[in-house]
Amino acid sequence: FLGWWRDVKGTAVGAFEMGRSDPRKVIFAAKMGAALSLVSVLIFFRKSASYFTLNHIWAILTVIVVFEFSIGATLNKGFNRALGTLSAGALALGIAELSKATGALHQVVVVVSVFLAGFLASYLKLHPAMKQYEYGFRVFLLTFCIVLVSETPDFLKTAVSRLLQIMVGAGVCLVMNVCVFPIWAGEDLHKLVVKNFRGVATSLEGCINMYLQCVGYSRIPSKILVYQAADDILYKGYRAAVESTSQEESLLGFAVWEPPHGRYKMFRYPWSEYVKLSGALRYCAFMVMALHGSILSEIQASSDLRRAFSDGIRRAGVEGAKVLRLLGEKLEKMEKLNPEDPLQEVHDAAENLQMMIDQKSYLLVNAESWAIEKRPPNSEEQEQRQELRERVNKPSLVKSLSALVHHNPAPILPKYDPHNANRSNSFSLSRWHSGEDMFKQQTVWPSRLSLLGDSILNEREVRTYESASALSLATFTSLLIEFVARLQNLVNSFEELSEKAKFREPVESTETQMVVG
Amino acid sequence: FLGWWRDVKGTAVGAFEMGRSDPRKVIFAAKMGAALSLVSVLIFFRKSASYFTLNHIWAILTVIVVFEFSIGATLNKGFNRALGTLSAGALALGIAELSKATGALHQVVVVVSVFLAGFLASYLKLHPAMKQYEYGFRVFLLTFCIVLVSETPDFLKTAVSRLLQIMVGAGVCLVMNVCVFPIWAGEDLHKLVVKNFRGVATSLEGCINMYLQCVGYSRIPSKILVYQAADDILYKGYRAAVESTSQEESLLGFAVWEPPHGRYKMFRYPWSEYVKLSGALRYCAFMVMALHGSILSEIQASSDLRRAFSDGIRRAGVEGAKVLRLLGEKLEKMEKLNPEDPLQEVHDAAENLQMMIDQKSYLLVNAESWAIEKRPPNSEEQEQRQELRERVNKPSLVKSLSALVHHNPAPILPKYDPHNANRSNSFSLSRWHSGEDMFKQQTVWPSRLSLLGDSILNEREVRTYESASALSLATFTSLLIEFVARLQNLVNSFEELSEKAKFREPVESTETQMVVG
Repeated sequence: FLGWWRDVKGTAVGAFEMGRSDPRKVIFAAKMGAALSLVSVLIFFRKSASYFTLNHIWAILTVIVVFEFSIGATLNKGFNRALGTLSAGALALGIAELSKATGALHQVVVVVSVFLAGFLASYLKLHPAMKQYEYGFRVFLLTFCIVLVSETPDFLKTAVSRLLQIMVGAGVCLVMNVCVFPIWAGEDLHKLVVKNFRGVATSLEGCINMYLQCVGYSRIPSKILVYQAADDILYKGYRAAVESTSQEESLLGFAVWEPPHGRYKMFRYPWSEYVKLSGALRYCAFMVMALHGSILSEIQASSDLRRAFSDGIRRAGVEGAKVLRLLGEKLEKMEKLNPEDPLQEVHDAAENLQMMIDQKSYLLVNAESWAIEKRPPNSEEQEQRQELRERVNKPSLVKSLSALVHHNPAPILPKYDPHNANRSNSFSLSRWHSGEDMFKQQTVWPSRLSLLGDSILNEREVRTYESASALSLATFTSLLIEFVARLQNLVNSFEELSEKAKFREPVESTETQMVVG
Repeated sequence: FLGWWRDVKGTAVGAFEMGRSDPRKVIFAAKMGAALSLVSVLIFFRKSASYFTLNHIWAILTVIVVFEFSIGATLNKGFNRALGTLSAGALALGIAELSKATGALHQVVVVVSVFLAGFLASYLKLHPAMKQYEYGFRVFLLTFCIVLVSETPDFLKTAVSRLLQIMVGAGVCLVMNVCVFPIWAGEDLHKLVVKNFRGVATSLEGCINMYLQCVGYSRIPSKILVYQAADDILYKGYRAAVESTSQEESLLGFAVWEPPHGRYKMFRYPWSEYVKLSGALRYCAFMVMALHGSILSEIQASSDLRRAFSDGIRRAGVEGAKVLRLLGEKLEKMEKLNPEDPLQEVHDAAENLQMMIDQKSYLLVNAESWAIEKRPPNSEEQEQRQELRERVNKPSLVKSLSALVHHNPAPILPKYDPHNANRSNSFSLSRWHSGEDMFKQQTVWPSRLSLLGDSILNEREVRTYESASALSLATFTSLLIEFVARLQNLVNSFEELSEKAKFREPVESTETQMVVG
């Protein structure tokens, strides 16, 4: 009994928390309760009237199925209900008249037409294009079958009574939903996209900081490995942006039903542009995801190397996050971008980073291993380098190389001996060995490269591991630069949205003018 | 009229195609029609019986709301319907008795309790944990309100009549849905995961081929830039795997309701492991996505460079795709993995690739630019290299470097002059310049690096671009190697599933034995 009581208490606390974090849910529930009460009251008052004695179930049914969280969803369902009811009623009336003419076969005609209607409606509603009318098909079937099967003597009276009831129910729904504390799906869509911008910016900043502070995961959360929601703040940010597609689609489906309102005072408001903008953001978020992937990777650049490039990486990352936050803020305020190029700074930062990489690229490669090849000329003309490249392409050379590699297969070492962890002086190697847990979840593979049997280090393999580790920094920066390149696409999407949705011109804040003046 | 006729014809063709590609949809629709006809026939036959004269609407309503595509969904809805109806009926009966005792205030009690029930049910159903009982809450409200408001004199008779009707409807649904051509959600989930494996493998192979054949996008489809569904086969494969989360969640929600059946003869079949496996696959698919990202990127490695590493890249890619296909096939057949390590080959390939990169890393960097730094020692001990790295970390050096970079800001060049495209002899540069269309969609940024004003090439920037272009190959291979590393996680997930779901032991095909013997 105590356990049960604890469960009840936990549920109550959870429910209360839900209401506190989103008060609109409380408002929605109260509106629903009020709508139902209102219908009950109407039914009690009109009980004397002849039309309402029967079938008041229809008013209640209508409220319960049509009343939805947002106005768009309610309008969509109401439209479906009306269309389904009216078309089914008319069709059923026709068939009922027809079946009467057949006399004895009357019931056969009814059963056959019920089958046909059931087949066609159920089949068509499975078509992807019909998805938003799914509810209309259900209502159609319900009305069609009931009208055909019921065979009331006074058909017209029943039909009018039901329609009246449905109209009362729908009317109460609309008034309650639109006039009292309206909840707009469009507003939700807008806020969702803004939130995604913030989330991706937070993830990007987190990635950069984690990378530069050389903080690694002592153990990769297994939820990340199977892409489930996890509490990692860095992961949550981009995952939410990537995962919001279906939510956006459904909000879009409702938002297009909503009349102009509030800040969205425009007929045919371009809601689909919000979804496109969010898609462009997602396209950037995939690069943040790849950056996070390099942090999760087992082959890691040494902390020395990271420090050598930290200025460039930090600047590019910070500027990139700044652009994301700027766009998010402008979207929230529904302002156009300022006339100057918002990407100026971040492009400069990325170029600097690229030049830095270029100048210090000797840190990224293992010059010793060149000994087996001809060394590259030191300060000759570019033609010579081109020539060298061509020479490498000769198949014979490639073959001899790969043969050489085959002669030296990597030893298999499934187990790791913690006593020798200190022998490797590279940061990443020791980091990666320190989390024994990881072996359960993570691959055994790169360990084959680094330690051989009884802690005898195979120099060649250590070298290969080290070169991979240094190149992993190049990968991180390349991904960061690709992220920056993708920002242009995001800015284009934003500009398209801001044009189509007629965002305000940016207001120069007086503060800025003061500084400029 | 002609246009309208064409529309109708188009719709009909589309509907026909849908049925041909998935005949289960036709079967479902026919079953629905048959269930409705059956209920109509029952109503016609029983019209004389007293219980059925009224309220036959309930049987029809039950069929229409409970009959769903898969058995799991039908059982879930049926359970919701039963639970909602019974609990609401009992509660409403109690309150009705109570309200009679209050006499004059009778109607006030009814309205207040309707409000409270409406509020609580609507509020609780918004809680994420209650999502799968959403329909139960609706049914609860409907029954509760109708029972309270209707005030029939003979309450028990009405209740029994309705329950009978509902049971008839539910019975028809169950019999039709389970006994005639059953459609299982679990089977769908299984097939979906298998399909995702194939899709990711196809994408990976496509990426590798496209990269090695130096085929670029002349114009990146704008749908990819905003992450919408596009017809690109390479893109479709991984996108489907990444996007299937919500579909998997809903199939999982239905599959757990299904009794053991067919190949899934086990109570508490571990359906959630399928979702986890698909998550692990998604974690690999993100790397394929990143590989595709490098193909879409503007900074591209030259074709010479790609050719130099093509053997290694191809082998790693082919072996990686082989592993994916193997796992997909095993999953389809529900067989365990063979005792030997399925990753042996792909790990060897990745190691070879890494060594190849290590040995030819001079191709990836721009040795000329080292002139401004001290050259790295050529064949000395490792200690010296370590020392060099430490030297670079001195803040003064980093500062002087970044100062140097700042003195040479990149020129801004928003426009491109097509006449000079031939001056750049690198493959990627010309490729990237050839698609003028791309400028509309894609960033202007890297062009700043390559051409200066009136076609005067700034050597420094060309060099930077070239080094970025060479390092982009290192990025591609790093991502490929990271993909290979993530396969271990996928294999672990598969093994967990195959244990928990008791997959068959692998059958050695006689062919293999013949070859071995």
